[in-house]
Amino acid sequence: MAFSERVSRLKSSLIREILAAAQRPEVMSFAGGLPAEAMLPKVEWADMPVSMGQYGMSEGEPALREALAAEARALSVPCEANQVLVVSGSQQTLDLAAKLYIDKGTEILLEAPTYLAALQIFQLFGADCITVPQEVDGPDLTQLRVRLEKHKPAFIYLIPTFQNPSAVRYSEAKRDAVAALLDEFEVTLIEDEPYRELTFDSDNATPIVSRLKRASWIYTGTVSKTLLPGLRVGFLIASADLFPHLLKLKQSADLHTNRAGQWQALQWIGTDKFQHHLSELRDFYRVRRDAFQTALEAHFSDLADWSVPQGGLFFWLKLKQPLDTRTLLNAALAADVAFMPGEPFFPEPDNNLGYVRLNFSHIDPARLDEGLKRLAAVVSHAQAAQAA
Amino acid sequence: MAFSERVSRLKSSLIREILAAAQRPEVMSFAGGLPAEAMLPKVEWADMPVSMGQYGMSEGEPALREALAAEARALSVPCEANQVLVVSGSQQTLDLAAKLYIDKGTEILLEAPTYLAALQIFQLFGADCITVPQEVDGPDLTQLRVRLEKHKPAFIYLIPTFQNPSAVRYSEAKRDAVAALLDEFEVTLIEDEPYRELTFDSDNATPIVSRLKRASWIYTGTVSKTLLPGLRVGFLIASADLFPHLLKLKQSADLHTNRAGQWQALQWIGTDKFQHHLSELRDFYRVRRDAFQTALEAHFSDLADWSVPQGGLFFWLKLKQPLDTRTLLNAALAADVAFMPGEPFFPEPDNNLGYVRLNFSHIDPARLDEGLKRLAAVVSHAQAAQAA
Repeated sequence: MAFSERVSRLKSSLIREILAAAQRPEVMSFAGGLPAEAMLPKVEWADMPVSMGQYGMSEGEPALREALAAEARALSVPCEANQVLVVSGSQQTLDLAAKLYIDKGTEILLEAPTYLAALQIFQLFGADCITVPQEVDGPDLTQLRVRLEKHKPAFIYLIPTFQNPSAVRYSEAKRDAVAALLDEFEVTLIEDEPYRELTFDSDNATPIVSRLKRASWIYTGTVSKTLLPGLRVGFLIASADLFPHLLKLKQSADLHTNRAGQWQALQWIGTDKFQHHLSELRDFYRVRRDAFQTALEAHFSDLADWSVPQGGLFFWLKLKQPLDTRTLLNAALAADVAFMPGEPFFPEPDNNLGYVRLNFSHIDPARLDEGLKRLAAVVSHAQAAQAA
Repeated sequence: MAFSERVSRLKSSLIREILAAAQRPEVMSFAGGLPAEAMLPKVEWADMPVSMGQYGMSEGEPALREALAAEARALSVPCEANQVLVVSGSQQTLDLAAKLYIDKGTEILLEAPTYLAALQIFQLFGADCITVPQEVDGPDLTQLRVRLEKHKPAFIYLIPTFQNPSAVRYSEAKRDAVAALLDEFEVTLIEDEPYRELTFDSDNATPIVSRLKRASWIYTGTVSKTLLPGLRVGFLIASADLFPHLLKLKQSADLHTNRAGQWQALQWIGTDKFQHHLSELRDFYRVRRDAFQTALEAHFSDLADWSVPQGGLFFWLKLKQPLDTRTLLNAALAADVAFMPGEPFFPEPDNNLGYVRLNFSHIDPARLDEGLKRLAAVVSHAQAAQAA
């Protein structure tokens, strides 16, 4: 069987296996990044035109592109509708970017930790992943400059607003500094913002792409965290030099994004109804975040350190006594608890032991305390065994 | 700007440009492969469960996978639901297959001519395209054997039922012979069948994958030609050795196919309502095919040779006096007529001049005769100029 060389880098996806295990109804899952079922809005389809059933444009629906460009401009992203490409969920942006930039051995720059599925597809295409350490307010700027001086990455991939998995939100100062560095070294920025709207305070720092003066850029977002992930509707907005290539790659990937989902997204984006829904969503998740923090304090104060996330869907815990958290999975699942080990979020997992990502949006509040109690017991037990 | 090496092979898509030009309402277009608007069925959404808005499984909806497996088994394709992967239109199957098999310089085997968008993505990934000539009842078997003896292609890509663009349907004998050859040389078959249901006679030859005994295979189809292309729902069914790799590649491409489209497809596939719709569709397209044949005979008898297609959406004309039909595009568009030059359907366009693909499903019948008359005038004029 002669597969491509690429396939040798196709990892068995740990998260797929965990999520499959978490399907059992008795499992208390902190593993995925799923919206709460209760907050999926009821949507109407009766008014969708029959013409949405026909083939559409690879670029996406014109009215949706206009609406997305208007939203982006409101965040100071300098763009027109003709720079907007509707994609089949923002995961597809990563696929298109990988195709555009990555040959085997191409250097790219990532936060450490970074989004697992981004790491997987960049590595599938053969990227050589250079990393910059994450601090509480964004990347270590000294290290970022060192990397940029030493390497010539094809792009840098950043999630500056409620990063997955670390929940870090870059400060205004770091956003400006990162933009200045990327302009200085003329490195393309891919800025991924699925969580921007899920904010629990009034801070509203604009995207880094809006601060660039010279560097090329791709800004990507989705309705998966704010409306319905099942629609598979996301978008990218790209600087004019990149857009034509991304459009052709989109066309060859799947012709165009499903039009029913695009039509539905258009019924919401930019409307008062959507603002009202987002407001309810933020209130709902803020309450869940607070309850999670209370339960964490009860069960993990002696075991881990963490910051309280100001947005997004995750807590990111650093164990006080590091161990390979992948080794905890079987014991956790045996106790009907699922979580995401932190190691796979790093290009070099074995050098970054002892982190855990916990989703707070999807767990049934009635089972939250019991779930974290059991997980804490699994950690304690393993640490005691390690110490023995 | 450092793009991937791959991007140097990203062609400007002729078909995109033609289809964009064909958007002008005054243009009579024979260019695309669009279903007739009048035959897009009215679909209901009111009963779709809210849960379809949540993230779904990368494999696709379990009930849809069961239904698709049952349909395939009825065509003698030996499969279970766990071999079915729902994809974002069958174009995505080509993307996944390219990722699975193609490195730069990987040899693959194709019909000449073959589906333009398949050729584009296989070439994008760097394939070295070996071809086998198409005859009226399928590939030249002698040449196929020669190719298989001389090369070791990663796969062969075939569209045996109403091929795009040639409209060829493989005979029973050639289906058996191709299967035997692929078993003998153990070459993986990718069989693409978007047009199977659009048949105008009672012939119903089973897929080639159902005739294989040893070779690995991927069978792919779509609801785009039978239900609604805007849903972007297709499927692949793969031999058990290939499925796990394709599933991981699907997950990294776009997580999963949109669930609204999957749910809608499930309301139709395997139902009496769908059979009734397909029957109406076949009757409708048969009438259009017949009208097209009449108009072709009136205007192209002296200019070209062709076979009457027994299914699918296209006539494939061979000009009696070959010329590069790409050079006719501007004159045709100036006369408000769009068509697809045949050359881009061959890996070596310049060695295969003088073919034209004409879509008969989408043109307004009232404009059919005028459109073909104008196109014939463009061809005649160019041939006269060439002869002069």
